Amino acid sequence: MKVFRFPENPLIAPDDVKPFHRGHEVIGVFNAGVAQLNGEVLLLLRVAERPVCTDPNVVKTSYIDFSSGKGKLKEMELQKNDKRYDFSDPRMIFYSDSMHRAAYVTSLSYFRLARSKDGRNFTIDDKPFMYPETEREAWGIEDPRITKIGASFYIQYSAVSPEGIGVGLASTTDFKTCRRLGLIFHPENKDVAIFPEKINGKYYALHRPVPKGIGRPEIWIAESDNLLYWGNHRHLLSLSEKGWDSCRIGGGAVPFKTDRGWLAIYHGADQNDCYSLGALLLDLNDPGRMLAKTEEPILKPEADYEMNGFFGQVVFTCGALTENGTVRIYYGASDQSIAGAEISLEEIMEKLCKCFI
Amino acid sequence: MKVFRFPENPLIAPDDVKPFHRGHEVIGVFNAGVAQLNGEVLLLLRVAERPVCTDPNVVKTSYIDFSSGKGKLKEMELQKNDKRYDFSDPRMIFYSDSMHRAAYVTSLSYFRLARSKDGRNFTIDDKPFMYPETEREAWGIEDPRITKIGASFYIQYSAVSPEGIGVGLASTTDFKTCRRLGLIFHPENKDVAIFPEKINGKYYALHRPVPKGIGRPEIWIAESDNLLYWGNHRHLLSLSEKGWDSCRIGGGAVPFKTDRGWLAIYHGADQNDCYSLGALLLDLNDPGRMLAKTEEPILKPEADYEMNGFFGQVVFTCGALTENGTVRIYYGASDQSIAGAEISLEEIMEKLCKCFI
Repeated sequence: MKVFRFPENPLIAPDDVKPFHRGHEVIGVFNAGVAQLNGEVLLLLRVAERPVCTDPNVVKTSYIDFSSGKGKLKEMELQKNDKRYDFSDPRMIFYSDSMHRAAYVTSLSYFRLARSKDGRNFTIDDKPFMYPETEREAWGIEDPRITKIGASFYIQYSAVSPEGIGVGLASTTDFKTCRRLGLIFHPENKDVAIFPEKINGKYYALHRPVPKGIGRPEIWIAESDNLLYWGNHRHLLSLSEKGWDSCRIGGGAVPFKTDRGWLAIYHGADQNDCYSLGALLLDLNDPGRMLAKTEEPILKPEADYEMNGFFGQVVFTCGALTENGTVRIYYGASDQSIAGAEISLEEIMEKLCKCFI
Repeated sequence: MKVFRFPENPLIAPDDVKPFHRGHEVIGVFNAGVAQLNGEVLLLLRVAERPVCTDPNVVKTSYIDFSSGKGKLKEMELQKNDKRYDFSDPRMIFYSDSMHRAAYVTSLSYFRLARSKDGRNFTIDDKPFMYPETEREAWGIEDPRITKIGASFYIQYSAVSPEGIGVGLASTTDFKTCRRLGLIFHPENKDVAIFPEKINGKYYALHRPVPKGIGRPEIWIAESDNLLYWGNHRHLLSLSEKGWDSCRIGGGAVPFKTDRGWLAIYHGADQNDCYSLGALLLDLNDPGRMLAKTEEPILKPEADYEMNGFFGQVVFTCGALTENGTVRIYYGASDQSIAGAEISLEEIMEKLCKCFI
């Protein structure tokens, strides 16, 4: 697979983003939703911040406290030798008892807009475009996907709280104001990608439940009349037996239409938590019917910024653009920065054709 | 709380049910949906069967194999000394590796009808009323709730497969034929109870997701326009800090209307896996607003058939009837048999009034 990585990569790194919270630092700007408006490429950045901490024996984190009704930033300070907690995962702090429940996230994520004329050089807004607004978002909002339907842009995102990770929906027409439309998938679910048009009278969305007792993190598809209420859940894709997508998979970029089917770029992780991207081809008339999948990744971590960072060995996409037979994938690299790469659509199609199901 | 247990209890026990599968035994008849039709009380029994096994070194189980398209009963025989499996949970066989994934259920459940004129003495149909019919039901269907809306009875049930436990919906008008309406909640979810009428133009359902990474088995509420597609998920009730409902909770009987609010009888389990029943009072105009909950159980395992059985210390309801100020709860006892008990509605209300939130 010939991949053209932009020489400007990473396009946006934490140092490019001024912290929004006083006394905080930006530790990640990654997993951005992608849209086009008025001749500009818009990236809806997931920005992750945490309180600056100079004491190596201390871990500081923050969340939004809604106990008084209105949200209020609250900072936490934990001692690293506090045996009640397990600090081994850089993304999450767990209770160290046998239940191993999540106690805190290590950073608070929200969304900020970046704009570009050429798709490679971005200017970043100073203020958040979306910020945790409800109890269900108390631990942050993450990994937005943007689906344009008519004149509206629908933003699907992970809504994280101590009660679980669900999927929120919001809409905007101008990327100035936006409206929350409720939680469309209950916990545990993430990696939702709504298709950009009705298919035989129904909206469709890829989603990725994470069940506890039975089942694994795999890709499902649901349908809807109105984008708000979803049902007829069908299992779409299983983990592979071994290899790059054998441990977890989930929707990536919003699927786009080709003459041979809906093309969905998705992510998969292996046993070493290495995240790569693959492609699925879904039936034009029923996207719950899979026609083909790529056996090997179309993009895997290779560049330094993809191999090393906050959580290394990760390429993870929330959005792509297609033009003149080229797929331009924007992706989070190492859970730290944003990069871009272009791949020929024809080449993806050839790989898909070789492994029809 | 004054509880009148029927002297006929258990009303239906495994010995009362003839196995449907040749060479199988009925190990449980429990967690029944409840409806009334043509002057009769109908119980939609969860019947659990497994292959008869006389060798103490062997575990036999069965599931429905859909690999050829059409479902076919398949029997499994596992050696108890096979170190790949963990047989310690009577309900499920797990792989004994570090992932501890579910390998098989120990019995296959389906639904059979029982009919009664007096609500205590039941005649059981010979054949299943609902039997696993899709890949999503390959490991069985469990714990039906029945909601009557207009002339239709809507059956909500756990659809169990290696891909997870989701919630299926089916409808019938006559309890002779029934129609599958798809999976309305994705894994992991169960204990769904749809309210029996629209409230301010929307249908509502209690549901109980089981998230893996963040969150616990707690009660949520969703809304719908058409019963098929659900959204606007809201978290309704948390586990208590300690006591009878501190480890898992979930919807029980279909909620019914009182002049003070919607009354929902739900189940809770403590750290010893002891399952009891409590009551919630929900706002008549917005059942996502909780008015009160009982602090102590209204029914807890005490009788021999509730304390001892396939999985002891369990009372678990999927349906209740109300008449003349009396609530008649049908419930599964010890995951083995079905029992009935009556409690005064006024007494439940008094307990609720004492602990308004």
